[in-house]
Amino acid sequence: MHASLLSLLSVATVALTVVTAQQVPEAAFSSPRQVIQGIPAVNPVKQPWIWPLPQNWKRGSSTLKISKSIRFEGQGARQPIISKAIKRYKGLMFKKEDFPMIPYNWTTTDDKPSRSTLETVVIDIKTTNDRLDVDTDESYTLTVPVNGKAALQAETVYGALRGLETLSQLVQYYPERRTHFIPNAPWKISDFPKYKHRGILLDTSRHFYTVQEIEKIIETLSWSKLNVFHWHMLDSTSFPYVSKKYPELAAKGAYSPRHVYTAKDIKRIVQFAKEHGVRVIPEMEAPGHSTAWGYGIPEIASCLNTQPYFGYTIQPPAGQLNIAHPKTKEVVHGLIDEWAELFPDSFFHAAGDEVIMKCWEDDPYITDYLQKKNQTLKQLFDEFTLGMEDHVRQKNKTVVVWQEMLLEYHVNLPKDTVVQVWIGSEGVKEVTKMGYKTIVSAQNFWYLDLGFGRPRSNPYPEVQGAGFNHWNRVYSYDMRANLTKSEADLILGAEATMWGELADPNNIEDRLWPRAAAFAERLWSGYENPKGEALTSADAILRLLPWRERLVLRGVRAGPLGQGFCTRNPLDCFQPPPKA
Amino acid sequence: MHASLLSLLSVATVALTVVTAQQVPEAAFSSPRQVIQGIPAVNPVKQPWIWPLPQNWKRGSSTLKISKSIRFEGQGARQPIISKAIKRYKGLMFKKEDFPMIPYNWTTTDDKPSRSTLETVVIDIKTTNDRLDVDTDESYTLTVPVNGKAALQAETVYGALRGLETLSQLVQYYPERRTHFIPNAPWKISDFPKYKHRGILLDTSRHFYTVQEIEKIIETLSWSKLNVFHWHMLDSTSFPYVSKKYPELAAKGAYSPRHVYTAKDIKRIVQFAKEHGVRVIPEMEAPGHSTAWGYGIPEIASCLNTQPYFGYTIQPPAGQLNIAHPKTKEVVHGLIDEWAELFPDSFFHAAGDEVIMKCWEDDPYITDYLQKKNQTLKQLFDEFTLGMEDHVRQKNKTVVVWQEMLLEYHVNLPKDTVVQVWIGSEGVKEVTKMGYKTIVSAQNFWYLDLGFGRPRSNPYPEVQGAGFNHWNRVYSYDMRANLTKSEADLILGAEATMWGELADPNNIEDRLWPRAAAFAERLWSGYENPKGEALTSADAILRLLPWRERLVLRGVRAGPLGQGFCTRNPLDCFQPPPKA
Repeated sequence: MHASLLSLLSVATVALTVVTAQQVPEAAFSSPRQVIQGIPAVNPVKQPWIWPLPQNWKRGSSTLKISKSIRFEGQGARQPIISKAIKRYKGLMFKKEDFPMIPYNWTTTDDKPSRSTLETVVIDIKTTNDRLDVDTDESYTLTVPVNGKAALQAETVYGALRGLETLSQLVQYYPERRTHFIPNAPWKISDFPKYKHRGILLDTSRHFYTVQEIEKIIETLSWSKLNVFHWHMLDSTSFPYVSKKYPELAAKGAYSPRHVYTAKDIKRIVQFAKEHGVRVIPEMEAPGHSTAWGYGIPEIASCLNTQPYFGYTIQPPAGQLNIAHPKTKEVVHGLIDEWAELFPDSFFHAAGDEVIMKCWEDDPYITDYLQKKNQTLKQLFDEFTLGMEDHVRQKNKTVVVWQEMLLEYHVNLPKDTVVQVWIGSEGVKEVTKMGYKTIVSAQNFWYLDLGFGRPRSNPYPEVQGAGFNHWNRVYSYDMRANLTKSEADLILGAEATMWGELADPNNIEDRLWPRAAAFAERLWSGYENPKGEALTSADAILRLLPWRERLVLRGVRAGPLGQGFCTRNPLDCFQPPPKA
Repeated sequence: MHASLLSLLSVATVALTVVTAQQVPEAAFSSPRQVIQGIPAVNPVKQPWIWPLPQNWKRGSSTLKISKSIRFEGQGARQPIISKAIKRYKGLMFKKEDFPMIPYNWTTTDDKPSRSTLETVVIDIKTTNDRLDVDTDESYTLTVPVNGKAALQAETVYGALRGLETLSQLVQYYPERRTHFIPNAPWKISDFPKYKHRGILLDTSRHFYTVQEIEKIIETLSWSKLNVFHWHMLDSTSFPYVSKKYPELAAKGAYSPRHVYTAKDIKRIVQFAKEHGVRVIPEMEAPGHSTAWGYGIPEIASCLNTQPYFGYTIQPPAGQLNIAHPKTKEVVHGLIDEWAELFPDSFFHAAGDEVIMKCWEDDPYITDYLQKKNQTLKQLFDEFTLGMEDHVRQKNKTVVVWQEMLLEYHVNLPKDTVVQVWIGSEGVKEVTKMGYKTIVSAQNFWYLDLGFGRPRSNPYPEVQGAGFNHWNRVYSYDMRANLTKSEADLILGAEATMWGELADPNNIEDRLWPRAAAFAERLWSGYENPKGEALTSADAILRLLPWRERLVLRGVRAGPLGQGFCTRNPLDCFQPPPKA
C-alpha cells in the first residue's frame, strides 16, 4: 500500500470509530473492515468497474478527487435532455453512503493520490436533433485527464447520456476519507453498443404498476444502458388503457378506476423514458390473451371467461377477440390510431401469440360466419392479423410480432416484419434463416420471471420450481449460436421479459436486478472486446458484484449475487474448480 | 345483493369516481371494479379469511361496524405487553388503504348490515406471568357479538396477542363506504396451536441485517402466529457479535464496525420479540462454518481461508474451529456464558453441522495433538462438541443440534437433545425413531432460500435453478408422513429457513412471504381441523390470497401468488383440472 495513503487511512480509522463508538469499544477495531490474509494487495481486476463494459478503455494509476460543485460546460450541457440528466447524475455521483461490501483494498491500492481535483466536464454533441429511435447513435467518448477538464463527446444527446452514466460509475467513495474520487485516472473511453435494441418487457395487465413505479424501472434500465421499454400493457387479466374512443374498455376491464393508464400517463412515461434514452414500444396484445376487452364490449370477445377454462386458454381467464365480428376490427384499428399518436416510436408490437383455436371453433358466431363466407378459420385468422398489421404499417410503423405468427401459424408476413423469438433459443435460427429481423427473448435464458412455479397459478397439480435463469445462465447465452454471419446480422437485439404472473411492484426489483444487468452487458458490450477476446462470466462477476452494490446504493432492491463475504473477497470465492 | 347495501354502493361509486376524476371520465365507470360474469354472487369461501385458520370458529351473517375509537378493557388490557400490542393493532386494523385486489363481491354479499358498532373489547387473562418459552400457553377465545362488547380470553398475555391478531384480521375496509367493518358477525373463535415450536431461521452472517430490519421480520412472523426467531448469527463469512470478553472477534471478523450486534442490540431484539410473542433462539455455529472466528483469534482456527478452498469447505471461505486448541474451548465456553445471559430462552442451538474432516486432518496442530494424546479425530470431535453442549446444559438450557451430530457423526447425544432435521424429510423418521425430539426444517420443502442457483456462488459451473419450494409444496408437506404416533409426538414443531447466500434485506420479504405464511398455517392449524377434516391447499389458496394482500397493505413486500385477476376472481383460476 502506498505510504501516503496508509497514513491517511490510519487517521481515517480513528474518525470512523468515533461514529460507531456507541456500538463497539473504539480501540477494538484495528482494521476498519474485515480484511483477510491471502487477498492480493493489488487490485487484480483486469477490467474497470463499469457496467456494461465499454468497448475501448484505457486507464492510468492516479486517484483524482472530484469536486461536489463540478461544472458541466459546452453546448451539449445546455441541451434540455442533457441538462436534466446532469442534475440526476450529480445526485447519483455524490451519494453519501458507503459501498460497504466492495473489496476494501481494491479501491485504494493501485492508485497514486493526485493533488488535482476534477472540476469541469465539457460536453459536446454533434447534432441537437433529439429524435430517439432504433437507429439513434449512442456512441460517445469520455476522457478524464489527471489535470484539467474532462471531455464527453457524442453524436447525439443519447450518446451523451450513456457517457454521463459511465462517468458516474467512475466515481467511488472513500468512507474513511469522506470524499468522492475517481480511481485509475487518466481515463480514455470510447464506447458504443453492439446491438441497437436492448430492452425489457414489462407486463402491466396481470399486475398493475403505477406511473411512478414504471418510471423507476425505466430509470434503472438506463443505468445499465438498456434502451427499450416494451410495454405489454394489455392482456386477458385486465385492460388498464383508457381509450378516448372506447372508454368502456378500461371502465369495465381495468382492475379498478385507479388501475388505469390515461393518455396523460402515457405521454408522461414516454417523455420520462425519452429523457433517459429509453424507447417505449407498446404491445397491443391481440387476438389471443384478450379476455379483458370483452368486459367492456362483449361482442368483440369469443369464449369470454368460459368455465372451466381448460382447453380454451393457456391460463385463466379464457377469452380471445372475436375475429369475425366487424366491431372487433373497428375497435382494434381505433386503438391503433390512438396508440400510434401516443407512442412516437417507429416500432409497434402487434403480438399474435398463444391463440387457442378451440376458443373460436366453439363460438357459434365464428362458425356461422365461416360457413356464410365459405372461409376457413385459418383464412379468417390471417385476414384479421394481417389487417391489423397493415393498419399499423399505415401509421408508418415497423410491425413486431411474436414468433408463432411466423413459425406456428405460418402467416405470410411481409419481410419488413420484426419477429420476436420467445419459445426457445432455437427459434432465432428458424426466424433469421427465413430472412426476418429478430428480437431475441429466448425463455430458456432471458425470461427473468420464471422459476417460481408454473405460471398457471393453479394449486392443484403440485408445482415444482423450474426455469429460474441464474445470472450466469443469462450472461452465458450467445444469441448467435449456430447462425451464419448473415443470419446473425438480422438480430436487432434482445429483450429480457418480466411477465406478470408472479411479479409485481413488490418483488420486481429483485427479479430484474442484477440479472437484467447481466443481460444488458451482452447487448451493449457483446461477446468479445474489439480485440476479439471473449468477455467471460469469470471476469464479469468481478464487475457485476460492485455494480449490484451500486444499484443498491442507488435505491434499487437488487438481490445479492452470493454471500457478502464473496462480494468483499471475490477471489476467495470465484475460482475455477479443480480439474477432474 | 342486499338492497340497502346496493343503494349505499351506488352513492359510494360517485364518491369514488370523484377521486379519480382526473384520470377517467366519471360516467365511464358503471362498476367501481372489474366484476366478471359467472362469479357466484355469494361468498363461496367456506373458511373465514383468517390466517392461520383457527381451530374452532363459528360465524354469523351480520356486518358489524367497528369504531375507530374502539376501547380495550379488562385486566388483560392493562398488562404492559398487551397494552403495547393494542396500540399496534389499532394501527393495523384501521389502515386507510383499500385491499384493491380482493374479490369485490365477496366482502359484501352474504352479510346483513348491522345497526350496531363494535366499541369495546374486554381482555381477560388467567396469569400475569409473562415468561415466554416452549411451553407457553398460546390459546385464546374470541367472541364478537352483534351487539355489545367483544371478549378476548386467554391463559397468558401471549394467547391474548394471538387473539388480537385474529381480531385484526376480521376487520375489512369498504373503500366505497370509507368504513371499517367486521363481516359475518357474530363470531365465536376458540383457538390454539397444534405445534409449540413455529419458527424461521435467519442468517445474519452471510449478509447483515440491521436491528430495525430484524425487528420488522419478527413482527411479520407474529402476524402469521409464528413464535420462534432462530438467530443464525455467526458463520464463516462474518462474525458480527461484539463479545464483551473477546471484542477482537467482531473487530476483525465483522464486515465492518457497522455490521455488528452489541449486547444492547441483542437485548433490544429479544425484548421486541417477546412483546410480539416470539422467542429468540441463538445458534452458536461451531465447530464448522467458523472461518470468521479466526480473523480475530487466529489460533482457534484450522484451515483458515485455505486456497483454493475446494475440499476444505462446503462453500468458501474455508475455516473451522481448531478443536484441539485449549483457547478454542475457552472462547466457545466464554461466548456461551455471554449468550446464556443475553438470550433468556431455554433453548440454545449448538449447531454441529457440515464439518469437513480434511480441514482438521491437514492441520499439523491437530495431527500432532492427536498423536500426543493417542486420540482419534472422531474422539476429539465428540469430546469438543459434547463439551460445548454440556456447557450449555450447565446454563439450564435445552441443547438443539443439527441432524448430522446424530445421523452422520453418530455422537452419543443425551436423550434430552433436540435434533433439527434439515437435509431431507426422511431425517424426521430417523431422528424420532431413535427417540429424539425434533424440529423439522426439511430442505426439500421448507428451505425458502433455495431455487436461485446453487449456493456455492461460483460462476464457473453453469448453475441451473433448482429447489424452489412453491407455496403449495410448502403447504403440502406433512411432517408426520411414515411416522408412528409416538414418533410423531416427538415433533416439537418446525422452522422454515432463510439462509443468506442469496437473500439479504433487499429481497427477504419476497423470499419469506407468503410462503412462510403457508408454512405457519401447518404449524398452527395442523393438517386437519378438530372434526378430522383435512385442511387442503385448494381451500387454503382462497384465504392465502387475501392474506398476502393484507401483508402488502401492512407494508410487507410479499410477492404475488398469481395473476392479479386470480386474486380478484380465485374461483375462475383455482380449479381442479379435468380428469384424464
